[in-house]
Amino acid sequence: MSKLSSVEVLDLRFPTSRDLDGSDAMNQDPDYSAAYLQLTTELGEVGYGFVFTIGRGNDVQAAAIEALRDHLMSINVDDALNNMGAFWKSLVHDSQLRWLGPEKGVMHMAIGAVVNAMWDLKARRAGKPMWKLLADMSPNEIVELVDFRYLTDALTESEALEILSAAQVGKAEREAELLQTGYPGYTTSPGWLGYSDEKMVRLAKEAVAEGFTQIKLKVGGNLEDDIRRMKLTREAVGPDIRIAIDANQRWDRDEAISWVSHLAQFDPWWIEEPTSPDDVLAHVAIAQAVAPIKVATGEHAQNRIIFKQLMQSGGAQVVQIDAARVAGVNENIAILLLASKFGLPVCPHAGGVGLCEVVQHLSMFDYLAVSGTKQDRVIEYVDHLHEHFETPVELMDGNYVAPVAPGSGARMTPDTFLDYVYPSGRVWQEL
Amino acid sequence: MSKLSSVEVLDLRFPTSRDLDGSDAMNQDPDYSAAYLQLTTELGEVGYGFVFTIGRGNDVQAAAIEALRDHLMSINVDDALNNMGAFWKSLVHDSQLRWLGPEKGVMHMAIGAVVNAMWDLKARRAGKPMWKLLADMSPNEIVELVDFRYLTDALTESEALEILSAAQVGKAEREAELLQTGYPGYTTSPGWLGYSDEKMVRLAKEAVAEGFTQIKLKVGGNLEDDIRRMKLTREAVGPDIRIAIDANQRWDRDEAISWVSHLAQFDPWWIEEPTSPDDVLAHVAIAQAVAPIKVATGEHAQNRIIFKQLMQSGGAQVVQIDAARVAGVNENIAILLLASKFGLPVCPHAGGVGLCEVVQHLSMFDYLAVSGTKQDRVIEYVDHLHEHFETPVELMDGNYVAPVAPGSGARMTPDTFLDYVYPSGRVWQEL
Repeated sequence: MSKLSSVEVLDLRFPTSRDLDGSDAMNQDPDYSAAYLQLTTELGEVGYGFVFTIGRGNDVQAAAIEALRDHLMSINVDDALNNMGAFWKSLVHDSQLRWLGPEKGVMHMAIGAVVNAMWDLKARRAGKPMWKLLADMSPNEIVELVDFRYLTDALTESEALEILSAAQVGKAEREAELLQTGYPGYTTSPGWLGYSDEKMVRLAKEAVAEGFTQIKLKVGGNLEDDIRRMKLTREAVGPDIRIAIDANQRWDRDEAISWVSHLAQFDPWWIEEPTSPDDVLAHVAIAQAVAPIKVATGEHAQNRIIFKQLMQSGGAQVVQIDAARVAGVNENIAILLLASKFGLPVCPHAGGVGLCEVVQHLSMFDYLAVSGTKQDRVIEYVDHLHEHFETPVELMDGNYVAPVAPGSGARMTPDTFLDYVYPSGRVWQEL
Repeated sequence: MSKLSSVEVLDLRFPTSRDLDGSDAMNQDPDYSAAYLQLTTELGEVGYGFVFTIGRGNDVQAAAIEALRDHLMSINVDDALNNMGAFWKSLVHDSQLRWLGPEKGVMHMAIGAVVNAMWDLKARRAGKPMWKLLADMSPNEIVELVDFRYLTDALTESEALEILSAAQVGKAEREAELLQTGYPGYTTSPGWLGYSDEKMVRLAKEAVAEGFTQIKLKVGGNLEDDIRRMKLTREAVGPDIRIAIDANQRWDRDEAISWVSHLAQFDPWWIEEPTSPDDVLAHVAIAQAVAPIKVATGEHAQNRIIFKQLMQSGGAQVVQIDAARVAGVNENIAILLLASKFGLPVCPHAGGVGLCEVVQHLSMFDYLAVSGTKQDRVIEYVDHLHEHFETPVELMDGNYVAPVAPGSGARMTPDTFLDYVYPSGRVWQEL
C-alpha cells in the first residue's frame, strides 16, 4: 500500500491574450496557462500542483512533469510525506536531471510542481490548510525541509534554527490575529500596459475604495506614457497609497537608473524587475542609484542561490517569491529564512493562474513561524481566473482572508479541466 | 521555395555509465546523451545541432526542441541564414517561450540546438568549416549577430566593433598559422573520479607523451583521496605540465576555499566549478582566496548575463564556454567578445557527445577574429564517442587540427542513429 495509483498531467490554457489582461513591457500577449499535476494515492487521496506559464511551451513544461512519473510511481507515499526534505533532495539532486539546469528552468519548475502537489496531499491528509500545517511544524522539522547547499555562506542550519525558534514566541496570538484580520494584499489590476488611461484611473480608484493601500503599474514601454500614467494614478489615489512600478525586465542597468529617475517625482514605493533577474550586480547598482525607492524582484529568480546573492549584496530590498518558479514549498522556505536573516520583507508575486491561491499560504506561514511580522509585507492580487479554483482566494478590505479548507489551494474545478485543456477543450475548440 | 522540408528530433543515448567514463563528484553515473536535431531544406541541404545531456531528461530536452518545429517550418531559410541575429532574437525574445527561463535551462538550450543547426546549414551551404565562415564575416556583420540586451553596462556595440576591427590586423597570417599548427588542447581523460590510481597515472603519462601540456583531474569526492591523486599525478607529469582541477560544483564557498588550500602545494593551474555556477559572489570570494590559482567556470553558466558578471567581478579568470549550454553560436560570440573586453582567456568545456567537434570552431574563430591570441588558451579534449561523428576531431601533438570540412562538426553517422536512439536502438535493445 501507500503508493500513488495515478499521475495525471494536463496542459491547461486560458485565452487571456484577447483582453490584454496581463500585458506588460515584455509580455504583450500572454495566454495564461498551467502545466497541471494531479496525484492520486491507492487510498484515493489527491494532491495538486502546477507550473504557471503564459502559453507556448506549456506542453514542454507538461512533458518535464511527465518525465518524473516513473520516480513518482515508485515512491512510498508515507515515507515521502514524512520526509519531505529527503523527497525534495531525491529530485533536485538527481544528477542526470540536474544537468538540465542545474536547478533552474523547465526541469526545476517541474520538480516544484511535484513537490507542491505532495505538500497539497500532505495538508489534505492532515485536514489543514497548508499555512497551518507548516506553521504547526517544529523548528527542527522545518529546518529538515531545507537544503542548505550553496547557502552556508549566508545562512547556516543553526542560524535558521535560531530564527525559527525565536518565532515560536507569540505564534498562537499571531494565528488568532491572522484568522481575524487576514494578510494585506495589493492589486496589479489597474496597471496593465494595454489598458487605457480612463480604465487605469477608474480601476485605481476602485482599488482604493476596496481597501487596498498599495497598487502597481506596469512601466517600461514608453517613458512619456509612463510619466503620464504615473501622474494620473498618483493624482487619482492621493499621496498615502503606495504605488509600485514594474518594468518586467525591460531595461539594461543604466537605462533602468535613468528611467526610474524620471518617475521618482511621483514617489514610487518600489521598482520591480528593472532588468534581467539573473543580473545580481546590475541590481546592486540600480538599488544604490534609485534609493530610497526600493528594488523588488524574484518572480523569475530561478532558485535560492540567486535570491541569496540579491539579499547579500543589497541588490533587492523586497523579496518576491513565486509559488511555482523555484522547486516548490521547500525551496521557498529557504528563501523565507534568508529574507528573515537579512531583515527583508517578502512580498510574493501572484496573479497568473492559481498563484494567489497557493502563495498566500507561504506568506501566512512566514508571519506565524519565520519573520513573525506583516510590516511592509503585501501579497500581490490580480482579480482574474480565480473562478477556476475549488477554493478561490477571498479578499476583505484589501486583505487576503486566511483559508481554512485543507490543502494548498491548487485544486481546480472539474469543469475547468474539460473546458481549457489544450487544444482539445471546449473553449479552444470554439475559438 | 527556401523553406525547411523536415525537422527531425532524435533522443540519442550512449551507455557510458558502465565504464565510469565521465564520473565526477556530482555526476556518478552519466549516460552521455544528445537531443539531436536534423534540419532539411526543400533543396535537400541539411543542418545539424544538439543539446548534450547525461541521460534521464534527454526526452524533455528533445520535447523542447520539438516545440520549436512550427516556428522552424514557417521560416524563409534564406532570410534566416542571412540575418542570423534577427533569427536568434525571434526565438530568444519570444515572450511566451521566454517565460520558461528566462534565457536558461531546457528551453534556452533547445533554442541553442536550433541556432547551431542553422549555423551548420549556413556553413555547409557556404562550403566552409564554421570557424572560417565566422572569421570571414566583417566586424559589422559579426556585431549584428549579438544581442547586447543586458550587456551594455559591460560591453557596448561600439566597443565590440572596436575589438573586432582591431582583430582584422594579422588575421590572414593567423589563419595560415592555425591551418599549420592547430589549436592547443588539454585532456581530462586521466582524471575521472572513478578511475584507479594506476589507471590515472598511466593515462597522465600517456597524455604528456602525446604532446599535451595540460591535463585535468576531477576532485571534490574525498579530500585525502584528492591529495593522494594530485600528488601522484604531479610526480608523474613533472613540474612543467599544467594540472587543472575540477570540483563540478561540489562545494559551498568556504569549503571550496579550504579544500583548494590543501591542494595548492601541488600547483594546480585552475580550480574549475568550485561551487554553484549561479553564485557569482561566491566565485569572487573564492578567486580572491585561492589566487594565484585561477577560478575557471562556464560549462553550466546559463547565459551571457552570468558570464558577464563573472568577468566584471573578478569571479572567473578562465572562461569556459560550452557549445550546447547557452543559445548557440550567437550567444557564444557575445561571450567571446566579453572575454576579450576583460582580457580573459576562453578555454572551452568539451567532451560529452560532440562538444569537442563543435566548440573547436568557436575557439578558432576567437583566435582569428576576436582575441587574436592563443596565449593560455586550451580546448578541453576527452577521447571518447568521437567515432560517432562524420568528421571527428583530430589531435596532433596535443593540438586540435583545424577542420576543413564544411559545417560545424555536429553531424553524426547514420549507424549511430540506428544503434543509439533511445529506447528503440539496437544497443539499448541488447542491454
